[in-house]
Amino acid sequence: MSAEPALMSLTSVAQAIAQKKISSREVTRSCLDRIAQWQPRLNAFMAVEAEAALKAADAADAALAKGAARGALHGVPLAHKDMYYDAGKVVTCGSKIRRDFVATTTSTALQRLKDAGTIRLGSLQMVEFAYGPTGHNVHYGAVRNPWNVDHITGGSSSGSGSAVAARLTFAALGSDTGGSIRLPAHFCGVTGLKTTYGRISRAGAMPLSQSLDTVGPLARTAEDCALLLGLMAGADPEDPTAVTGPVPDYVAATRGAIKGLTIGVPTAFYVDDLDAEVARILDDTIATLKREGAQIVQVELPEQRQLTAACQFVLATEAAAFHKRWMIERPGDYGPQVLMRLQNGLAISGVSYLEAMRWRGSALAAHNAAVAGVDAMIAPAAPVAAPTIAESDVGNSPDAEAVIQRLTRFTRPINYLGLPSLAIPAGFTQGGLPVGMQLVGRSFDEAMLLRIGAAFQRATDFHNRVPN
Amino acid sequence: MSAEPALMSLTSVAQAIAQKKISSREVTRSCLDRIAQWQPRLNAFMAVEAEAALKAADAADAALAKGAARGALHGVPLAHKDMYYDAGKVVTCGSKIRRDFVATTTSTALQRLKDAGTIRLGSLQMVEFAYGPTGHNVHYGAVRNPWNVDHITGGSSSGSGSAVAARLTFAALGSDTGGSIRLPAHFCGVTGLKTTYGRISRAGAMPLSQSLDTVGPLARTAEDCALLLGLMAGADPEDPTAVTGPVPDYVAATRGAIKGLTIGVPTAFYVDDLDAEVARILDDTIATLKREGAQIVQVELPEQRQLTAACQFVLATEAAAFHKRWMIERPGDYGPQVLMRLQNGLAISGVSYLEAMRWRGSALAAHNAAVAGVDAMIAPAAPVAAPTIAESDVGNSPDAEAVIQRLTRFTRPINYLGLPSLAIPAGFTQGGLPVGMQLVGRSFDEAMLLRIGAAFQRATDFHNRVPN
Repeated sequence: MSAEPALMSLTSVAQAIAQKKISSREVTRSCLDRIAQWQPRLNAFMAVEAEAALKAADAADAALAKGAARGALHGVPLAHKDMYYDAGKVVTCGSKIRRDFVATTTSTALQRLKDAGTIRLGSLQMVEFAYGPTGHNVHYGAVRNPWNVDHITGGSSSGSGSAVAARLTFAALGSDTGGSIRLPAHFCGVTGLKTTYGRISRAGAMPLSQSLDTVGPLARTAEDCALLLGLMAGADPEDPTAVTGPVPDYVAATRGAIKGLTIGVPTAFYVDDLDAEVARILDDTIATLKREGAQIVQVELPEQRQLTAACQFVLATEAAAFHKRWMIERPGDYGPQVLMRLQNGLAISGVSYLEAMRWRGSALAAHNAAVAGVDAMIAPAAPVAAPTIAESDVGNSPDAEAVIQRLTRFTRPINYLGLPSLAIPAGFTQGGLPVGMQLVGRSFDEAMLLRIGAAFQRATDFHNRVPN
Repeated sequence: MSAEPALMSLTSVAQAIAQKKISSREVTRSCLDRIAQWQPRLNAFMAVEAEAALKAADAADAALAKGAARGALHGVPLAHKDMYYDAGKVVTCGSKIRRDFVATTTSTALQRLKDAGTIRLGSLQMVEFAYGPTGHNVHYGAVRNPWNVDHITGGSSSGSGSAVAARLTFAALGSDTGGSIRLPAHFCGVTGLKTTYGRISRAGAMPLSQSLDTVGPLARTAEDCALLLGLMAGADPEDPTAVTGPVPDYVAATRGAIKGLTIGVPTAFYVDDLDAEVARILDDTIATLKREGAQIVQVELPEQRQLTAACQFVLATEAAAFHKRWMIERPGDYGPQVLMRLQNGLAISGVSYLEAMRWRGSALAAHNAAVAGVDAMIAPAAPVAAPTIAESDVGNSPDAEAVIQRLTRFTRPINYLGLPSLAIPAGFTQGGLPVGMQLVGRSFDEAMLLRIGAAFQRATDFHNRVPN
């Protein structure tokens, strides 16, 4: 057993609790100790519920003593992005508008983790209404990167990235509409899974863009993501977009080798205009995958800029429609950047929106044809490592859109196509900031990405490094 | 056997052919004779394929002689609105743009009628791209009302209304996006069924508005509509919006009495600003339903004008998105009114479109609550009988929208809610023009409407009158 239980992986700590090698209280206490130590520096938590968490841990320990484990994550304390409704709890969505909103239902994803036995540590910071890739929040302050607190975490799942990286929670739910799981995973050096559109129910999760929103975990390892995905995936009567059919054994998939798999590297776009250190780490990642037996081939993708534009049309229109009443009634309660971006959405025509929606089918078909010969594609999650908080704090200035575009360049096309993508820690800059790569797969083939990610993590230790 | 087989109902003629009391050739010949007599006056057909029809009739007779009947409509000649793809045939969609378009697939609805044994008589006129309620068409000329050729047929299924009323075809497919089946049924004195959204596959039918388009028949009786619906309804892998699940026995439903049923009459909107003759015929219809044993109650519906507006937002946006490329490349090939209306759709914001889409669920819930106590609702199909061609030929003038609004006032709300509605001949004006009433039902309960319609038709003979 680790001297500091909070440093264990989700998979390990769950097993240790189940085998009574450690109590839920000890684990929870360890997380709370780290939170006490780090939270003043990181601002990763929206709310810490120490007392309630310890009480729940004691109850979990008592239940386990009686042989009544709830499920695979019995007694494991977790915190999530503060947009997953949890009946009776305040869910701020990172906003002033919902500062005091008390959920009356519990989101399906969260309920399934609760059913597996998890304990609530509190809630995690996020970008206001999940609309922004940096991690800034004018209402609650920027969340800070545990590798260097002068740098951003990425967003919108800013608290999830920061808290998982600093080992304050074993994992955290994020959401990914344009990169909001993969960017914090990349900038903070954790593993983040953007699931296929339809893989996990969005019922009870704050909507940003109903055609793009996906639920997924940030965790320390691909194996941990697999464990969480298996618990959350599957049909839900509350969300007709959640697909029916059997859920694969994702954890089993992580045990596979990658020898004989074919991994594609794009010939353009995802390899263009990269920061030199990101380019080097991409090369290193490819070399590692080769060493592990994967065949690396080049893939020529269709034009990606149009996918980014289409993604933005859909996102901006749907977000503006969702927010319209508040935009009329409470415009002053939004942060300037979020309000500006929501207002931009009002100007998009219905025809442009429908064209962007309608193009999805043929764009996905063209993508699938381009990657037909590969098991997955590898690309950087972003062209740069985490910028500083100061340089990316652009508010609603004329620069804002350019900063946002640059950060989300490699993530938005994947959202538009609805594909799954696993961001994995792949190296560090000389300045000590993490860099992540994303594995992009076929629709509903998260298992392949988790298999490759886990094999990569058996061959590397970037995911095991802990900021101090 | 009737002296003129074309005057029989679809149900009767199909039985007569099946029982070899009459040949398909005799029936087809009779229809072609009437077409030759009426077409110069009505302009109901886009194309008459006499030779091919007779050849197909002979083949049907030969097959029947060998005991090889294809289905319930073996050897019955039909013509349909010229927007149902029929592989190898020109499908004009009433437009100049598609004047020479040859379909490479066959629409599911049409294929299912073919599988039942129907023969193709030709194709029927329609409003350009089905976008208009009058029956005017600048490319192919207005279709004329067989009851008075100075009057409109209503649209967009103009040829379907005219040809069924004049007994040129036993029935015809129409499509109803904002009233396009019910208006021609009403103005021409035939029975028209606007089906529930999702009841019949739209695969291979020209799209106007994917969220509103419905396929349905115009025929002489509710029983004939039931027969056709039963053949066409049901799931289709080519159209995911076509619902799965068993298809009721609609013909059996038409045999039920209406004694004990409760029929609602709206307290407002559908009874306001009616032409005096329409108001009288509504009263007569209610009296007949009462006499047949139905209980008549008043229903207080939610505000209907907002439903009309929402319907128009959705329709205009989706139509403009579908037509955008042609609007850029071939604007001069559209008629002025259709082009104006398509262009109006370009100005609607994506947010307005999404708001109109999103309101559907709660609007339907409010409607359902208002009609919870009734088996169906009765209302006029339009506030007036058929206007003259001259007075409704408004092109793209400033009056156009007001004329269109007046005609579609009672039909559009039903499209927005996705509900089924059966238009039935209910009387004649003193000037000899038909007036129809619509029965509006619960989602997917076409059976109830067909039951009430058939009972009404057993008690009345409006549907049996033939123009001369």
